[in-house]
Amino acid sequence: MDFRPSDRTSEYLEKIKDFMNEHIVPFEMSFLAEQREKNLGGNWLKWEQSPWIEELKSKARERGLWNLFIDSKEYDGMPNVDYAPLAEQMGRSQIASVVFNCNAPDSGNMEVLMKYGTDAQREQWLGPLMDGKIRSAFCMTEPEVASSDATNMQATAALEGDEVVINGTKWWSSGIGHPDCKVIIFMGLTYPEAQKHARHSMVLVPLDSPGVEIKRMLPVFGEFDEPFGHGEVSFTDVRLPKENIVLGPGRGFEIAQGRLGPGRIHHCMRCIGAAEMALELMIKRGMERVAFGRPIIQLGGNRERIANLRIAIDQARLLTLHAAWKVDQFGGLGAVSDVSAIKVVAPNVLQLVADEAIQMFGGAGVSNDTPLAMIFAYARIIRIADGPDAVHRGLVSRFELRKYKQASK
Amino acid sequence: MDFRPSDRTSEYLEKIKDFMNEHIVPFEMSFLAEQREKNLGGNWLKWEQSPWIEELKSKARERGLWNLFIDSKEYDGMPNVDYAPLAEQMGRSQIASVVFNCNAPDSGNMEVLMKYGTDAQREQWLGPLMDGKIRSAFCMTEPEVASSDATNMQATAALEGDEVVINGTKWWSSGIGHPDCKVIIFMGLTYPEAQKHARHSMVLVPLDSPGVEIKRMLPVFGEFDEPFGHGEVSFTDVRLPKENIVLGPGRGFEIAQGRLGPGRIHHCMRCIGAAEMALELMIKRGMERVAFGRPIIQLGGNRERIANLRIAIDQARLLTLHAAWKVDQFGGLGAVSDVSAIKVVAPNVLQLVADEAIQMFGGAGVSNDTPLAMIFAYARIIRIADGPDAVHRGLVSRFELRKYKQASK
Amino acid sequence: MDFRPSDRTSEYLEKIKDFMNEHIVPFEMSFLAEQREKNLGGNWLKWEQSPWIEELKSKARERGLWNLFIDSKEYDGMPNVDYAPLAEQMGRSQIASVVFNCNAPDSGNMEVLMKYGTDAQREQWLGPLMDGKIRSAFCMTEPEVASSDATNMQATAALEGDEVVINGTKWWSSGIGHPDCKVIIFMGLTYPEAQKHARHSMVLVPLDSPGVEIKRMLPVFGEFDEPFGHGEVSFTDVRLPKENIVLGPGRGFEIAQGRLGPGRIHHCMRCIGAAEMALELMIKRGMERVAFGRPIIQLGGNRERIANLRIAIDQARLLTLHAAWKVDQFGGLGAVSDVSAIKVVAPNVLQLVADEAIQMFGGAGVSNDTPLAMIFAYARIIRIADGPDAVHRGLVSRFELRKYKQASK
Amino acid sequence: MDFRPSDRTSEYLEKIKDFMNEHIVPFEMSFLAEQREKNLGGNWLKWEQSPWIEELKSKARERGLWNLFIDSKEYDGMPNVDYAPLAEQMGRSQIASVVFNCNAPDSGNMEVLMKYGTDAQREQWLGPLMDGKIRSAFCMTEPEVASSDATNMQATAALEGDEVVINGTKWWSSGIGHPDCKVIIFMGLTYPEAQKHARHSMVLVPLDSPGVEIKRMLPVFGEFDEPFGHGEVSFTDVRLPKENIVLGPGRGFEIAQGRLGPGRIHHCMRCIGAAEMALELMIKRGMERVAFGRPIIQLGGNRERIANLRIAIDQARLLTLHAAWKVDQFGGLGAVSDVSAIKVVAPNVLQLVADEAIQMFGGAGVSNDTPLAMIFAYARIIRIADGPDAVHRGLVSRFELRKYKQASK
Repeated sequence: MDFRPSDRTSEYLEKIKDFMNEHIVPFEMSFLAEQREKNLGGNWLKWEQSPWIEELKSKARERGLWNLFIDSKEYDGMPNVDYAPLAEQMGRSQIASVVFNCNAPDSGNMEVLMKYGTDAQREQWLGPLMDGKIRSAFCMTEPEVASSDATNMQATAALEGDEVVINGTKWWSSGIGHPDCKVIIFMGLTYPEAQKHARHSMVLVPLDSPGVEIKRMLPVFGEFDEPFGHGEVSFTDVRLPKENIVLGPGRGFEIAQGRLGPGRIHHCMRCIGAAEMALELMIKRGMERVAFGRPIIQLGGNRERIANLRIAIDQARLLTLHAAWKVDQFGGLGAVSDVSAIKVVAPNVLQLVADEAIQMFGGAGVSNDTPLAMIFAYARIIRIADGPDAVHRGLVSRFELRKYKQASK
Repeated sequence: MDFRPSDRTSEYLEKIKDFMNEHIVPFEMSFLAEQREKNLGGNWLKWEQSPWIEELKSKARERGLWNLFIDSKEYDGMPNVDYAPLAEQMGRSQIASVVFNCNAPDSGNMEVLMKYGTDAQREQWLGPLMDGKIRSAFCMTEPEVASSDATNMQATAALEGDEVVINGTKWWSSGIGHPDCKVIIFMGLTYPEAQKHARHSMVLVPLDSPGVEIKRMLPVFGEFDEPFGHGEVSFTDVRLPKENIVLGPGRGFEIAQGRLGPGRIHHCMRCIGAAEMALELMIKRGMERVAFGRPIIQLGGNRERIANLRIAIDQARLLTLHAAWKVDQFGGLGAVSDVSAIKVVAPNVLQLVADEAIQMFGGAGVSNDTPLAMIFAYARIIRIADGPDAVHRGLVSRFELRKYKQASK
Repeated sequence: MDFRPSDRTSEYLEKIKDFMNEHIVPFEMSFLAEQREKNLGGNWLKWEQSPWIEELKSKARERGLWNLFIDSKEYDGMPNVDYAPLAEQMGRSQIASVVFNCNAPDSGNMEVLMKYGTDAQREQWLGPLMDGKIRSAFCMTEPEVASSDATNMQATAALEGDEVVINGTKWWSSGIGHPDCKVIIFMGLTYPEAQKHARHSMVLVPLDSPGVEIKRMLPVFGEFDEPFGHGEVSFTDVRLPKENIVLGPGRGFEIAQGRLGPGRIHHCMRCIGAAEMALELMIKRGMERVAFGRPIIQLGGNRERIANLRIAIDQARLLTLHAAWKVDQFGGLGAVSDVSAIKVVAPNVLQLVADEAIQMFGGAGVSNDTPLAMIFAYARIIRIADGPDAVHRGLVSRFELRKYKQASK
Repeated sequence: MDFRPSDRTSEYLEKIKDFMNEHIVPFEMSFLAEQREKNLGGNWLKWEQSPWIEELKSKARERGLWNLFIDSKEYDGMPNVDYAPLAEQMGRSQIASVVFNCNAPDSGNMEVLMKYGTDAQREQWLGPLMDGKIRSAFCMTEPEVASSDATNMQATAALEGDEVVINGTKWWSSGIGHPDCKVIIFMGLTYPEAQKHARHSMVLVPLDSPGVEIKRMLPVFGEFDEPFGHGEVSFTDVRLPKENIVLGPGRGFEIAQGRLGPGRIHHCMRCIGAAEMALELMIKRGMERVAFGRPIIQLGGNRERIANLRIAIDQARLLTLHAAWKVDQFGGLGAVSDVSAIKVVAPNVLQLVADEAIQMFGGAGVSNDTPLAMIFAYARIIRIADGPDAVHRGLVSRFELRKYKQASK
């Protein structure tokens, strides 16, 4: 057993830290404040991509800090366990992932295309995504059903001759408000009578297809996460050539399972990076401010709390690294329970750390004077996105009980 | 021991429930959405008081559902323990307190004037406040110091001849963005050399006094709580006649202590009402939505969670009622530890219930399609306002340890 | 609403405190140590009732501190809400309840006889129990089934002519090891085909009936709770006249429900008293011992912990008093959810307080040099006895959900 | 980063599992019951070492499963990270460590002798200990002071000419009741005026030295852990040649620090093994027992609880393995905070798992019919032994804050 990061990881880590400290972190809060100014109550039609971000993207790409999330050998990627510490580092900023072209949902969508796309699909969409020229969305969750059970899905992707016709309403389609968003991966019902996991298809839907309509942007605790946003989108008789189906009709779940392992690891590692940032802010604040004659970090249970948070973060990191390693060794299907476990742990730890950090800051913590409210909102939404805690706990439990059921046969 | 509410409470409770069900709750979400539309990124200069709210206020007053928070016999008030269940009921809506003229900080400011104001002060400010014609703010917390230790306060209220001159910066001045806000109760340092609790004065500051400047509004998790708002305000050589000092120079802490007991009880009971609302929404959602073939309320640990939340709410309510009763029996100073205890318990229970309810709703929970995000934000800020959890735990502990120190003498 | 205890409660409370401080508490630990010495590895055949306890019982009875738990007007009892604070006080000692003839399971068995017994049954058993001359046991839980579901019960109470014939094995029959234990209330299956709650009967079984055999005593974390003990008992063709059935065949559940409300309130209030004792010991220890130059109560999160425990105890007490009041007002069936709620809260709070107190004491806490290990064991077993936490949470949840089911009709 | 265990670990792991399944686990409960029978209320003078254990020790040694805990290269040991999974496996039984001669405190005492002993000391004590022929104790904790602050220690090891004279009272001296216990490592004050960590010496004290008197054995929740026991021991003018001092006078703390890293890792990994065992028992019980028509594992929040426990155990294991790896890489002093972190996490996780498992078993869980009460007691005492949670949290916090203090210079 060896906990040393690979040489490649160490090297990239240094570079990413330097880049972030030099170019991102010092400017982030004022950038976000500016963007919030322009936000205008979620009016996404006026959202713009910032030229500053584009500039940073160019710089990052020049330095080779680009698309590092890729784990496919075909694309010269690195194992998840090696990328994980880089994702953590990026998680210290709420905008860094984008700068390194490693942000959700684009990274997951690129993965889908790499693993399951045809040459034509890759050429049309993967190239521009890898270049960071376009953005994409993923449309799975629906407003009218409990999407925690993916088989509840009501939207349809019906086969008609050479076409696939899609209908339905999706929401929490992240990234769909971005002015550069050009393509959606849409999931819908194709074979209602097939067995539960062979009913759905994933379809590549150009955003400008007739029948696609963005209805509104949804806030997360008041934040619209512009210019990406989380959209509600309706699809009305959207007709596309069958070639837009990924992997084949009825194979949507197969893709979903393949897609979600690494994506969840990225989210979890970013959560850990954000938790480190929140803890750092908390401690520094606690050392600076004085009450009742002492730095507030020394008061009450604060030191104990710091210890508990440190321990919780370290445990969450190790669990996530271990899950990443298992995905690398045994594939996503060999690490389902492990990935579900981190999906529960990491955002909950982040929410806890952010909550405590806010408490140390007082009013400043819930305002936008610190990144804490934003970090908190990130934790909160991740506890829901890609399956709520309850579903993941259910999965962990099912795998645990299965050990004994098999034994008892 | 008798847990039956008084007849007066029962009667008002019925009326308030009816009023809220008929006039407030069904319209609340759309009203808030509308208000959010007009919010324009916290641009308070354009905030307006809604005529709909003014209409509701008239109706409520006609029915005698007005200023019920008053506990002073002089003003024909009722004991805190009798008012508490009414505050709980109002807490089921985020706008009801205003409709019944029972909202913070106006209620607390009215109390200050009732208990400590001169006839002239009462005439000028108390009358219009009790009529709901004007609104007020309370300026205590400061951005540059840990305000959890009130003796850290840096703003000054200096005596110069017949005048008091105030200087400093305050923030989290709730209600100051309201177009009808006309007066501030300001707390500042008058006698820096006096003993710790005799240094500060409270001063009535007309909002239009030269030298008072609202700098910005602060969001709580992205919400501005318009048209009330939480403001940052600077005071620069604001000169007022000495008569604007309440009770007398150096007696600010004395007032603060008197002011905070009932105010905290109101907040806590509103938290409990909001928690009941969140729990109700959670259960209803859990019964309606289906996943894996069963209503989601039946899945995983959901039923157990419902039990835990029910138990937590009931305990918080009883603790708060008991504290209210103690304030009635022994005065605010006879219930310091009790009031601190509820100040820890009630908002934390609310935060927990809101968090779980959000989880049951999924994405809808963090958006503005339900009141849950707003309820969550209310809980979150109450854990900070009027003293953070840590300070109140410290107080409870001090009183607890004191029992044994005295015994050991 | 009035939280003042009744005059009767205040008066008895004073007397009980005085009695306990004078006669019980100072001698308790050495008495228990002595008893443990004689314990001989759970060899209950040699257990003796202590003459010291008998002497205390006489003294208590002389002063009118006797059978105070009775809530039946017929027997000149007092409401549960009035008795509850007395039970709390008794809970500060692990032997006081016995001294005041208020201990489980005798108190519950006396209640059964008062409410449901025939004159003959009362004469034979109730009189001596009320005199504290004999002790009794309650045999319900069985080793071979999940007794949390009472309908799992396998033991039988079959009607044969004028006789009832009982068979089966019971365990956790508390008090059955006592040398004065003379009678058992046994619950068994009579009508297997009847509806679920009309199948079982309760039967009065003299301990010396042929066919009754105590197999062993069960320890709780190594403690046998001598001379009462928790026994495993087998019943083999025990034949008794039908007159020994209480209330009538098939009415066992009816009795069980009536029996458990007050009994659970007593346990919960004793838990609260024990929690107060543990907290007191914890604080005193924390003030006496010094580490790193300060009393350990001042270190780390200890003060905060004290606050949390104080708040938890106060909440548990109020919830229990409220449940007691509801039982008085609406009967046991009108307070099922309330009683289940306290059954979850009170022993869990006690376990938490005891655990923290142990931690403050270090090694002394887990040994028998303090009452803490015993208090901890009491909490731990109460979380199981009379229904485990999970069953009670389930009940609270069922009542909560029912509110909305009815509404939706 | 590579989470694969070393080949050596895998190989030993297989052998240990087989040995335990074949020779230990099936007989453990009846062996312990027998031993408890003979316990006689902590009468250690009659304790005997079981011939069955001695036989198992021979068998284990034959198969090379002996002294595997050794990490010293000089003694052909293996890294801590390689031994850790073996310690976990041993932790599944409460007697296995002894069988493999890997039990505390003997393992720690052997380490001290290996690292700091003279040839003579090693010859006299280390050889027989490594052969499992004798047992030893470690006397550090004292009854009269808060031993969490080791500098509180009052016992003395005074230098007089060629002798060291020791006086004082120690307790929680584990293993001292064992009939084969022949030697104590005693820690006492030698240079009261020296700086805090250079005052104490460690001295090898033959148990039969005049002046050494075992006063009593201390129970942990009623268990005496015979034939090892936890003793209270007085030392009265015990005179020994100076050669019995380990490493040199005043160097006790230096040794203590070196001693505790690996020892704590062993305890933590055993906790994890015990937690796995408790979880396994819990799940099996939950699958077998039926209530309300379903296996109880399916009821309420049980599945969710299983998930939470699985996740908690996995995190604790990874944290402990990582700490072991750090000790291997950077020495004990390079992993102080890491070792403190696991010392908090592992026993707390074990206590939680054991508590939940008990709850699933009901009465059987607190009795001795399952190993759960014993496992619970193990967790409980480990939270106190080798420094209570609070001290370790304090250390973690100190290291965390130090990062920023250094940065701020």
